[in-house]
Amino acid sequence: MVVFFMDPLTTLTELLRDLPGIGPRQARRSAFVLAQKNPHWRKKFITALIDAEKKVHFCKECMHLFTRKRDDETLCPICRDIHRDDDTLLIVEKDADLENIEKTGVFQGKYFVLGGTTSPRSKKPEKEIHLSLLEKRIEEKKNLKEIIFALSANTEGDDTVRFLRTYLEEKCTALEIKMSILGRGISTGTELEYIDTDTMIYALKGRG
Amino acid sequence: MVVFFMDPLTTLTELLRDLPGIGPRQARRSAFVLAQKNPHWRKKFITALIDAEKKVHFCKECMHLFTRKRDDETLCPICRDIHRDDDTLLIVEKDADLENIEKTGVFQGKYFVLGGTTSPRSKKPEKEIHLSLLEKRIEEKKNLKEIIFALSANTEGDDTVRFLRTYLEEKCTALEIKMSILGRGISTGTELEYIDTDTMIYALKGRG
Amino acid sequence: MVVFFMDPLTTLTELLRDLPGIGPRQARRSAFVLAQKNPHWRKKFITALIDAEKKVHFCKECMHLFTRKRDDETLCPICRDIHRDDDTLLIVEKDADLENIEKTGVFQGKYFVLGGTTSPRSKKPEKEIHLSLLEKRIEEKKNLKEIIFALSANTEGDDTVRFLRTYLEEKCTALEIKMSILGRGISTGTELEYIDTDTMIYALKGRG
Amino acid sequence: MVVFFMDPLTTLTELLRDLPGIGPRQARRSAFVLAQKNPHWRKKFITALIDAEKKVHFCKECMHLFTRKRDDETLCPICRDIHRDDDTLLIVEKDADLENIEKTGVFQGKYFVLGGTTSPRSKKPEKEIHLSLLEKRIEEKKNLKEIIFALSANTEGDDTVRFLRTYLEEKCTALEIKMSILGRGISTGTELEYIDTDTMIYALKGRG
Repeated sequence: MVVFFMDPLTTLTELLRDLPGIGPRQARRSAFVLAQKNPHWRKKFITALIDAEKKVHFCKECMHLFTRKRDDETLCPICRDIHRDDDTLLIVEKDADLENIEKTGVFQGKYFVLGGTTSPRSKKPEKEIHLSLLEKRIEEKKNLKEIIFALSANTEGDDTVRFLRTYLEEKCTALEIKMSILGRGISTGTELEYIDTDTMIYALKGRG
Repeated sequence: MVVFFMDPLTTLTELLRDLPGIGPRQARRSAFVLAQKNPHWRKKFITALIDAEKKVHFCKECMHLFTRKRDDETLCPICRDIHRDDDTLLIVEKDADLENIEKTGVFQGKYFVLGGTTSPRSKKPEKEIHLSLLEKRIEEKKNLKEIIFALSANTEGDDTVRFLRTYLEEKCTALEIKMSILGRGISTGTELEYIDTDTMIYALKGRG
Repeated sequence: MVVFFMDPLTTLTELLRDLPGIGPRQARRSAFVLAQKNPHWRKKFITALIDAEKKVHFCKECMHLFTRKRDDETLCPICRDIHRDDDTLLIVEKDADLENIEKTGVFQGKYFVLGGTTSPRSKKPEKEIHLSLLEKRIEEKKNLKEIIFALSANTEGDDTVRFLRTYLEEKCTALEIKMSILGRGISTGTELEYIDTDTMIYALKGRG
Repeated sequence: MVVFFMDPLTTLTELLRDLPGIGPRQARRSAFVLAQKNPHWRKKFITALIDAEKKVHFCKECMHLFTRKRDDETLCPICRDIHRDDDTLLIVEKDADLENIEKTGVFQGKYFVLGGTTSPRSKKPEKEIHLSLLEKRIEEKKNLKEIIFALSANTEGDDTVRFLRTYLEEKCTALEIKMSILGRGISTGTELEYIDTDTMIYALKGRG
């Protein structure tokens, strides 16, 4: 019988490559660091990983990852918060976007996390974003008056908005829900010497 | 009598440092390159420099630098252009901003080049921007209905807008001229994960 | 009794900050990714972490981290390799340096991993590098003829070499072991326009 | 008759593109700056350009650009300096390399500036570097004992050295002149974690 020997350093290096923004050298150095951590650190890390499996779940309303404090919790703190407006729904791509927008403290409605981007040309958009859950969310929330697309101002974001506008049009018309998109214009740091045509068009139109 | 010897390579290196964005090494290498250029190149360059002195002037209406084709020209091609709207005036900081906005082709009104930035705390704003010329421009143009501030979205730009709004308020009210500022929001390339509070506020307010 | 609630996402974010080169945003995004990994991935990762604790050990001769294939292995594959020269010892700072040098394939002797850097001004050099183990290694290896310092060409590396030369001088003289340092000069990519004085001195002296 | 109108701003922008490291936007902004400089600045610049034509010449021995203090000077200050060793000749690519090496103050011999790079595959190496002048220089200098190639450690530099070694071999052998190249090894800032194979080979060979 041949037993294939797995070097944990090699395994750790490979698995660490799955984390966002980590290159091969950094993964290798991180594997060495992990291998030298004391048992206490390692135990804390493993416990957190196992805990994450048990306690970190998608909110069943907005698909935001959150940590349950009680086993029967199905809604994230934002969806549970009765002080937040139920009439606007901000559609974001990923958890990090939601968290950053929350940090600005300027939005008081609810969110929906798509979990990715898609496009009008996509064959299987339901594999790329939480599409049926979004539809369900729109149908079930009785107070909903406006959906705001808050996607990045790049090709992926624009394609996703284009897809969703078409896909949701009939339903939103029937339910009298407005669809809008974050305002475009010059943003903090924009220098006029480098402004692009699209941004200039939006900035002129949106002047005030 | 002591005659101080001036090395033209040293002089060129020093003078080239006055050009925007040129560091000491680049200035030195550029001086060597200039010294090796053939007489034809050098003549062309010197002619252009002398020509610039004779022919490149500030437009007396908008303070944009332009090249006169006839000696009696006092207006730049944009200010002369009868097809451009006289009712909106876009206030920019510098010529490069004006040229870049022209390249986008989306603005059909007239410009005014401030020649710099200032702030409400400035002791001598008239030394930093073409202030009295701007006032004169506003008073004399009879059709003017709107002034649009198109300054960079940074501290200098914001301070300049704040100063001008206060400074021009009375005059603009009297003449029924609206003051506006380029719309803010997310601009091409903005990622939601890194959006700042100000831009998020503008983007939510300006959604549509 | 107050039970403090630990959010595994927060714990993971904090612990991931201990990996080399990971900033706060990347740690946060990585925590989300870890929390979403499937049970198979997570199990593989945890197994590798536990395995690393059991199987990854410092080689007792060179202090290189290596994975034991059998429980009684105490030497890393390099130290076990009878085809490698026992007469030269390359002193490196860390495992990643050793691995990169091995990748070049040009060194056939043995290594010693210091595990850090120190300096002649250090109060407790034995806390910063594996000093007594290095001494032991030098004394016990009967064939040793040369120690080569292969430290980075920066202040930390130079200070460490300076400290070790003084510290080991007597012992090396007694044992007739030569101490040397990697040759300095221009290295791949060096442009003469930017060469520093030290490198130019070494490059001229080492010309050939 | 059609007279083509040349805009001095356009001409300046185009000519400034010939300076090393200046992009189109920077050239444009520099043209605006030049056009606004006061007559005194402009006069100083033009005088320096004309002076450069009259006074900056290639040294007839080493092809370094230098400024003549008297009209009959044909040698640069380095070639004129009787305290500098005549027995070693450092071959460099360009003036900036020579100036940087002079700044380190560690070389006391003479130089020869190739004015470019070439390669063994070049069809017309004499168009790329001052080849016949180099040969003449080698033949005429009676004390010359060593030629040191001080070219950048990249493909262009290595190719140039390879070409020159072959090309000059017979002559150097006949005249008993040694050919050498700057020593290679780790240079200031080299980190062992990123060392390449070539540099490691040189660094091991050149240890001391």
